[in-house]
Order: sequence, then structure tokens, then C-alpha cells
Amino acid sequence: MPVKSPYLLTPGPLTTSDTVREAMLRDWGSRDDAFIAMNREMRGRLVALADAEETHVCVPLQGSGTFTIEATLGTLLPRDGKLLVLVNGAYGSRMVETVRVMGRAVDALEWREDEPVDPHLVDEQLAGDESITHVAVVHCETTSGILNPIEEIAQVVAAHKRPLIIDAMSAFGALPLDAHQVPFAAVAASSNKCLEGVPGMGFVLISRELLEQSQHNAHSLSLDLFAQWKGFERNGQWRFTPPTHVVAAFLQALDEHAAEGGVAGRGARYAHNHKVLVDGMENLGFACLLPRALQAPIIVTFHMPADPKFDFGNFYTRLSDKGFLIYPGKLTVADSFRIGCIGRLGETEMHGALDAISAVLEDMGVHDRAPATTS
Amino acid sequence: MPVKSPYLLTPGPLTTSDTVREAMLRDWGSRDDAFIAMNREMRGRLVALADAEETHVCVPLQGSGTFTIEATLGTLLPRDGKLLVLVNGAYGSRMVETVRVMGRAVDALEWREDEPVDPHLVDEQLAGDESITHVAVVHCETTSGILNPIEEIAQVVAAHKRPLIIDAMSAFGALPLDAHQVPFAAVAASSNKCLEGVPGMGFVLISRELLEQSQHNAHSLSLDLFAQWKGFERNGQWRFTPPTHVVAAFLQALDEHAAEGGVAGRGARYAHNHKVLVDGMENLGFACLLPRALQAPIIVTFHMPADPKFDFGNFYTRLSDKGFLIYPGKLTVADSFRIGCIGRLGETEMHGALDAISAVLEDMGVHDRAPATTS
Repeated sequence: MPVKSPYLLTPGPLTTSDTVREAMLRDWGSRDDAFIAMNREMRGRLVALADAEETHVCVPLQGSGTFTIEATLGTLLPRDGKLLVLVNGAYGSRMVETVRVMGRAVDALEWREDEPVDPHLVDEQLAGDESITHVAVVHCETTSGILNPIEEIAQVVAAHKRPLIIDAMSAFGALPLDAHQVPFAAVAASSNKCLEGVPGMGFVLISRELLEQSQHNAHSLSLDLFAQWKGFERNGQWRFTPPTHVVAAFLQALDEHAAEGGVAGRGARYAHNHKVLVDGMENLGFACLLPRALQAPIIVTFHMPADPKFDFGNFYTRLSDKGFLIYPGKLTVADSFRIGCIGRLGETEMHGALDAISAVLEDMGVHDRAPATTS
Repeated sequence: MPVKSPYLLTPGPLTTSDTVREAMLRDWGSRDDAFIAMNREMRGRLVALADAEETHVCVPLQGSGTFTIEATLGTLLPRDGKLLVLVNGAYGSRMVETVRVMGRAVDALEWREDEPVDPHLVDEQLAGDESITHVAVVHCETTSGILNPIEEIAQVVAAHKRPLIIDAMSAFGALPLDAHQVPFAAVAASSNKCLEGVPGMGFVLISRELLEQSQHNAHSLSLDLFAQWKGFERNGQWRFTPPTHVVAAFLQALDEHAAEGGVAGRGARYAHNHKVLVDGMENLGFACLLPRALQAPIIVTFHMPADPKFDFGNFYTRLSDKGFLIYPGKLTVADSFRIGCIGRLGETEMHGALDAISAVLEDMGVHDRAPATTS
């Protein structure tokens, strides 16, 4: 029998339930009716999570979240289009790079990693540059854990009649995103974040009207969401071999998401995890990068203590030995590390993590947890 | 607990062992040392299967086999290169389409689906067209189940000093492919065929020398094998979220492959499965598309019986009810269906499938199983 899993306090892959993993104990024929029915149910339930059944379709894709983002950009942006990416972290920058590799036009409007996207500047930019055909933004930037004001951004972009592509990878399923409140062309996410499935596939909720106009846009056969969608429409099947076990686990995860009260219930648990974590870390003397109002309840960035006895590698390994995996920082603006509050974790596990952190700091002799420069 | 799996007599996803699926019962941190060590072991063992440690590196990729083939073509073929694809089935045609979507030059040299690639014609083509920079071929075309003479093809292509890209998706791990006997630039395969893992990732064994010259060739960020390789070289990690559970299952599958005697042992079991299947189906009155000498021991194409009481959908559903999933045909040259002999199946399961087929045919009243036109 397998070893007990560690608790993954990361932005994903994250801790899943035993029942989600046990859903992978069976094989499925990828072209069999039973599996076709599973895909139909999965696609329908995902569109319903954004209340978008009338306007959008769900197109799942094999691979990591980045594959799904790339496919969305490549499929929706015409070859002579120009994308404006609103960048305040690594995942925004990755969208810029993705479009550059495709050889299509792309501009970035940039903010610091600890500042949210400002809708007024987006408004000005769109008013001043008619060549921009599409806009893309990250809902929650896990680089810092910052929450972007997605509804205001979407309203501005809609007022300028540009389609908006949202990377909601780390937020979808825990933070509300309703197609009636937040006008979007596409929202991309994955099986493996707040919906608490295992990694191996992503999905996009994508405007049926825009998708119908997207044939031959894609730069890639595998990453062509128009063709992928047409495949599902034709016979309910994935065009190319799907990760059958990952799909089965994802359906179980969607059951558990619904049983928890859907987006509201999942979001409430994560918000509580987040509060327990931030309160506890501040009690231990750590400083958060962001003020609470800007933090999404997904992942939190903490300043590295200035105390020379604090070594992140040592800290990480000792926590790992106690069964908790945390995450390195990804910031350019400050030395930091990150702790996630998503996945199949609750108050007990968050307190367990805090106790482990406290014990490790004592063992390491790190008594001053303040950063070199306070934020 | 999950329902018992059906037997998948398909070209994949296929039947896996209980122990392979049970390896997915634990979560892994994708950037944790324990998972990094698993990737190192997986990559090393895959290169060793082709005795290619000195010349090639293994680069795994998220997604289906087609994603891996596309990534290999996009990474190795320069933007001003020209690929010659040797086509005798749908997977060869798919490589042509893949390169066309990228907007790069591609020619096809074509054979009927029931004829193997002829190395002499490849020789002539390469002698007559200096603009061809790379050649690609499918080892076993599961469209028909035909085995291409890979060693002779590779010798011809090497004599013309063109790099050869082999789609060995359905053969690798069961049919020998030794880098010393079969000169190749790249061999692409997946976790989920003869190595008997679960679907969700592919891998390429790729010439280190050629890969080093491939920076900026790729048409896609996600499908760039140069960047993927550099990521593994830098810190042992996947660039983007890996399918952690699929990787864990694959390592278990590689253990079981080794325990069975590696490529020779796995190939011997499949060859026996194949013999039991073909003998049994011929005894039942079915006709194979291909003569035995051309058939790979992977999947077999049978002519559809001409008897009007034979309806494939009905036949499929009745077999499915008995726990055996077979596969529709993909041929353009004849009405057919397919039965696979790969996956965690042995003589007992093959006889079980034959008994089920016999019983279903009796129930359907199909007494004459001969095709309309005998082959």
C-alpha cells in the first residue's frame, strides 16, 4: 500500500481526497459509451459553475494549465490579431511569451507584482490603441497571491468591445466567476487547483459564438480548441487519447465540490484556511507581502526572515520531514516564500502546519522572523 | 470501491495492473525532491530501454502521444526545414497535417494501408530531393496493425544523412528498438501503450546533439522540447505542472516491465496473445486484413463479416456487456474492426475474449463470418 501523502501547501499539484484518488482504480475505454457519458457530465457541470450554459461551451484539453492557456490564446487570437496582456506576475508574463513564440502581435501593460491591475489604465490603453483585438488577464496571480479586480476589468474590456481571456487557473471553483457579472470570451482553468482533482488536464469555458469563428486560427494541431470542440460535438470523444484516470478523478472531485456547497462552500473553507494561516504566521512574527485586502484566499507570500539562521532550504526540508510541503517564492521584488491554502485541507491541517513551522523555527534557532525591510 | 475494469482490447488506453493503478493513491509535490528523484529514474530507465544512454536524452511531455509527436516535429524540424513523412495509415497522415498546421514544408510518400513502407522507394526519394531535411515514419501503424521495416528504413535514411523521427507510440517497450541497430534522431512513445502505464504523458528519446541545435525551432511554448529538456537539466523538474499521479503509475509500470524481462519478455507475451487471437478468430471464420508476416503483435484488423445479421454496434455492445471492449476500424480500404493484444492481458484473457465473441455471434445468429471480398 502507498505511503501516506504529505500535505501540499502549494499552488498545485495539491492535496486531494482519498476518494478522488480511489476513482483512478479502474480502467476506462476512451471511446466507450460509459466514458463518453462521463465527459458529457464533466463538460456540462463545468459550464454550469460559471452559469454560462447559454453562451459558452466547455472544451477540456490534455496537459498542464499552461497548455490550456496557450491553446485558448492560439485559438481565439487570429493570426493578424494583437493581444494586450495585463501583467502583474509570472503567469501574465508567460502569456506574453506564449504569444511571442506563436509569432503574433502582443503588448503588455505592466504593474508591480504586489500591485493589482488598475482598470482605469486598461481603459486608457484600449481607448488609445485600436490595433488591440483581444485582452488577457490572470484572475489570481499565484506569483504573489494577489487578487485582480476581475469584474471591473471585464466591464472595461467589454465597454471597448474586446474579447477578454481570463487565466483563472488558481481561482476557478473557489472564487465566484459568473458569466452574467463578468463578461468573458474565455476562462481557462485546470482539474487540479480549487476543484481538487489530480493534475493532467485543463479546460476552457469559451464563447460558442467566438469559437465558431476560430477555425484555422490555431498554430498547433494538438492545441486547437476549435478542432477539439468539433470532436466533442461530433461523437462526444476527445480527439486524441485522454487521461482517462484523471478524468474519472475529476468527476469525483466535482461531486465533492458540489457536496461542499459549490463555489460558495469551497471558497468559504479556503477563506477560513487563509485566515488561520495568516493570523498564525503573523503571530509567529512573519510579515505578509500583501495587505489582506489584496490577498486572494489561495496562496500567501511571506517575506523571508532577515535572521541569518533562517535558510529556506533547511526550513523546507525540516517541514517536509514533518509531512508539510510549502513552496518557494517567485517574486522579483522581494525575498519570499509561499504557503498555499487550497486543496483538501481544513483548519486542523492549517493548525498542524503552523505547529510544525513553529517547532522547526525553534529547532533552527530563528527567533526573529521579521524581514530585512518591512513592507 | 470501484467497479471491476473491463478488459480493453484496444490500442490504448489499455488494461493496466492493479498495482499500477494503486501507485496513484498518493499525492506528490511536483517540485519536491522525492518527485524529482522519480523523474530522474524514469528518464534514465526509458533511455536505457533503447540502449541509447550515450547519445540520447529522454524528454517527457504532458498530454497524449500526439502532443509528443507534434513537439518532436516542431522542435527538431527547423522553420525552413522540410519533412518527408512515410505514410501508410492515419498516424503517418497525422504527422503531415501536424507540420502543415505549423506552416512548415512537408511531403508525403504514400503506400496503401495494407502495405508496409518500402525502403527502396525511400532511398529513391531521398536521392532525388535534396530539399528534404528530415524523415518521419510510424513503427507500427495501428490503423491496420502493420509493422514497418524500421531497421531497413533507418539504414536508408542514415545513408542519406537525414535525421529520422520515429513514431513508436504503439510499439515501444514490446518490439526491440536499439539505437545501435536503428539509427534515429528521435523516438516518441507514451506511458500508456506497451509499457502499460496510464494515459497522460508521452516521452521522446532524442539525440542530445540534435536537441542542442534546436533552440527556438519550436512553434509552441508548451510543446518546446528544447526548453522542456533545459528545465530538467536545470533542476530536475518539469517546466509546467506534471501529471504527478500518472508519473507515479508509470514508474510502477516500468518496474513491472523489467520484472517481466523487459522488451523481450513483454514482446513474447504480446506475440503469444497475438497468436491466440488470430488462431481463434480464424477458427471462428474471420479473415485478417494482413498476412501474418506483416502483422505487428499489437493490434489486429479483421474484415467485417458480410452476413447482414452482423452489425458492429450490436456486436460491440454485447461484447462490452461481457466485459471486453474492442475497437472500431480506421481503414479506408476495407470495412473492418480491430482487436488489440497489448496491455495487462495474457492467454486467459485472450481465450476469454474469444469465448465471448463466439457466444455473441451465436446470439446474433451470425454463422458466416467471411468478408464480402476475401483478402
